[in-house]
Amino acid sequence: MSRLSYHKKAERWDVWEVSCHGPEEGNPFAEHWMKGSFSCDKETVDADGFYDGGGIYKVRFMPSYEGEYTFKVTADFLEEEECGSFSSMPAGAGNHGPVRVADTYHFAYEDGTPYYSIGTTCYVWDLQSDERIAQTLETLRNSAFNKIRFCIFPKHYDYNLGEPRSYPYEGTPMDSSVLTKENFWDYVGNAQGNDWDFYRFNTEHFRHIEKCILALRDLGIEADLIVMHPYDRWGFSAMNKEQDDHYWKYVIARFSSYRNVWWSLANEFDLMKSKTEEDWERYGAMLVEKDPYHHLRSIHNCMRMYDHSRPWITHCSIQRVDLYKSSELVDEWREKFHKPVVMDEIAYEGNIQHGWGNISGEEMLRRFWEAVCRGGYPGHGETYMNPDDILWWSHGGKLHGESYKRFGLLHAIMSETPGSGLMPYKRVWDEVCAVPEEKEGEEKAVKDYYLIYYSFMRPSFRDFCFDEETPFRVKVIDTWDMTVEDRGVFCGKFRVELPGKPYMAVQIKKEQ
Amino acid sequence: MSRLSYHKKAERWDVWEVSCHGPEEGNPFAEHWMKGSFSCDKETVDADGFYDGGGIYKVRFMPSYEGEYTFKVTADFLEEEECGSFSSMPAGAGNHGPVRVADTYHFAYEDGTPYYSIGTTCYVWDLQSDERIAQTLETLRNSAFNKIRFCIFPKHYDYNLGEPRSYPYEGTPMDSSVLTKENFWDYVGNAQGNDWDFYRFNTEHFRHIEKCILALRDLGIEADLIVMHPYDRWGFSAMNKEQDDHYWKYVIARFSSYRNVWWSLANEFDLMKSKTEEDWERYGAMLVEKDPYHHLRSIHNCMRMYDHSRPWITHCSIQRVDLYKSSELVDEWREKFHKPVVMDEIAYEGNIQHGWGNISGEEMLRRFWEAVCRGGYPGHGETYMNPDDILWWSHGGKLHGESYKRFGLLHAIMSETPGSGLMPYKRVWDEVCAVPEEKEGEEKAVKDYYLIYYSFMRPSFRDFCFDEETPFRVKVIDTWDMTVEDRGVFCGKFRVELPGKPYMAVQIKKEQ
Repeated sequence: MSRLSYHKKAERWDVWEVSCHGPEEGNPFAEHWMKGSFSCDKETVDADGFYDGGGIYKVRFMPSYEGEYTFKVTADFLEEEECGSFSSMPAGAGNHGPVRVADTYHFAYEDGTPYYSIGTTCYVWDLQSDERIAQTLETLRNSAFNKIRFCIFPKHYDYNLGEPRSYPYEGTPMDSSVLTKENFWDYVGNAQGNDWDFYRFNTEHFRHIEKCILALRDLGIEADLIVMHPYDRWGFSAMNKEQDDHYWKYVIARFSSYRNVWWSLANEFDLMKSKTEEDWERYGAMLVEKDPYHHLRSIHNCMRMYDHSRPWITHCSIQRVDLYKSSELVDEWREKFHKPVVMDEIAYEGNIQHGWGNISGEEMLRRFWEAVCRGGYPGHGETYMNPDDILWWSHGGKLHGESYKRFGLLHAIMSETPGSGLMPYKRVWDEVCAVPEEKEGEEKAVKDYYLIYYSFMRPSFRDFCFDEETPFRVKVIDTWDMTVEDRGVFCGKFRVELPGKPYMAVQIKKEQ
Repeated sequence: MSRLSYHKKAERWDVWEVSCHGPEEGNPFAEHWMKGSFSCDKETVDADGFYDGGGIYKVRFMPSYEGEYTFKVTADFLEEEECGSFSSMPAGAGNHGPVRVADTYHFAYEDGTPYYSIGTTCYVWDLQSDERIAQTLETLRNSAFNKIRFCIFPKHYDYNLGEPRSYPYEGTPMDSSVLTKENFWDYVGNAQGNDWDFYRFNTEHFRHIEKCILALRDLGIEADLIVMHPYDRWGFSAMNKEQDDHYWKYVIARFSSYRNVWWSLANEFDLMKSKTEEDWERYGAMLVEKDPYHHLRSIHNCMRMYDHSRPWITHCSIQRVDLYKSSELVDEWREKFHKPVVMDEIAYEGNIQHGWGNISGEEMLRRFWEAVCRGGYPGHGETYMNPDDILWWSHGGKLHGESYKRFGLLHAIMSETPGSGLMPYKRVWDEVCAVPEEKEGEEKAVKDYYLIYYSFMRPSFRDFCFDEETPFRVKVIDTWDMTVEDRGVFCGKFRVELPGKPYMAVQIKKEQ
């Protein structure tokens, strides 16, 4: 009789899991291993297992196809290979599979459905109280966000001096009662005063994060997991190479089979002074080797960008490096890296003291449209002062700003793009114009679609000139007041009257 | 008995003039010359004269000192040198002499009074009807502007298709009834259909411009004369070298003695396709040689900047070359050219269709403060649509915008600068900070004065930290709502509460 327990059915692109009892003595995280191999007529996948505490070992798998799968499990503590089978059922409603790069600069789910990324950042929403987490999920449910960046490790920073709900390792943290808003910087990168066993994971911490990933999945939201980051007072950013690799291996084994996981190797990698380029390259290579599903991989900068042309990087995850120009540079980065450009930090809407956290809703929305009309994907964050120091940017909770209310319209307009996505197009010098992505050598003289954005400019009218044959439907979009006005169908030369207000867009779409 | 007529008294830095009858036959502009030499115990100045029509020849002079002057006049039609004398009287109220470069990056009048430039542009306000000109002067009287850029030649462009009040040459213009808003570009740089004698000036045209220069002088406004420009349908931008030099010589002889004249060699020199770098260098050399008072000299760009490090250029006259960054680059240009940086076009506040002419009042004011807090000097312009197509940018008239109302406060704050002007100072990364200009090697650790601007950022507070000894008076400036709030005197570490609104500034001034 098999010692394995598992379900006989899985949903395509869902997590399927096989578990088994094994040794509890010693350090099972470090001293034992289990792995699985999964086969159907279309694929064979090998995956590492992991220890989940209480004598339970697991291997997880995400079936990429429908149909009958067989599997084999081996472990150092199993005398012989154990086998079994299960059925992979059709994907349910809303399950389109993992997100992939499409057409060089864009994204699509594995079933081919285009994915137009509208991200937000809540660094440690997952490590707050149950009530706050529920509130965050409710806020997300009522938003247009379909990606969220957050950390596995807790965060230490201004407004983030409290203890997280749990720690990733067994042990005890430093005494945080010494911390003040004035001295917190002195502890960034600190390890002293902590006592962790970097080889014994706190499985509850990871199980909780999995619950968060699943809750996001059920909302149709991608979980952009920040695996490492510098804002740490516990020594998690200063582990040695062996400890780092032990962590990466565990994280990959646990999380890879969740279809909505993206890998963000780091938030602000360049502030992690104890890590070298060799380290980042090694983590990247581990992901390529050990994540059987090849989830999206990126690495996020503070002042200095990583070389996004590295082959293991699937897309550019960019924090703006200029106080003034952010999304305005998306087209340059597209040309430089030939990958999707995701603006994962274009400053935060809010009013805190820090210069990265106090732009207006208007400016945030402007940066969103600029990014989209230059063929990129924008990301939001919010940092409004409040008496409880609960800021969306780190804690989640409720949104207090103005920009997020307007992302639904932007996403709806993005969804009207013919093809995989938009590319920047230099029509005239004084507008931002996007057209459907074209392959080199396949450019059309007259495009099927133009999305033109006027940013802070306020023209009272604009003249257009196409050929006399092609009929175009013209819509005027007030991106701030969220109105879309159908102006009818035009050919050749025509004028579009505009209200002389900022943040206007014009959509010009070929009539079928 | 002398044939000369002149006054026996002049005011220091005013125009003093000696005139004389001479030949009317032939072409007096090209065939005769007159010149003068003017001496007191402190200076001897040689100046070219000019023909003013009706048989009258003139030489003009601006005395730079008080006291007794003697002069000699010679002409090809005078049998012998004629002499005379006059008294240069003390400068009257508001007469501080011509503006000079001060302390490398700044300006001061010749009497040492600092000059903080707040410019505007009305390209051909001078060539409108008397009523419009009077209206423009009234608008200027009620404004903070102390410099205006305008042309000697008429302008042909969108909204500028009518005839000017006069032409600079004798002859007849092309038939302008063929022009429409659609075809005007086809005529830019045109010469055909015009019939001018480029060797016979229309003296009435020049006398009228002199009246405008004097009216500006009486308002304390510098006349930044644009001598050449590309927006021309009459052939004035395409004269040959000899004709150009004839024009330059005449312009210099007539206008140099007006203390409030600045020379702008061109508006958008790089659009004047028939002129070469050699041409611009020759005009520059003529100015250096023939303007005895060495008025300020600059050359303004469209897409490509002139090399402002050329020695004959006194200051950078810059049109922004990026849709997003304009005044934000002032500090870079200071470092590159080591000259005053004047933003003579940072886009126009308005709502016309052109991308250079439709920013908001808020954005214009923001660019003004950015320029000032980076150690430069901003320039305004306005292009609001109206039924009569009278736009301040070209025609003058009334202002319709919002930014200009707020320049008075900016100028008042600039006037509180200790020393010659402000320089940018990297205090922290997320603010724009200016301190009094310091010479290399003479930097103070704690400055006497900080002017900090938060631009579009909206901090709710900011912390400052100086030494415990120096008392600073702190004022919070709402640059848009035009309030200045005195928060009292602080030492060492202190917090300044702010309203979380954009466009705020903080002035921190050492208590005496």
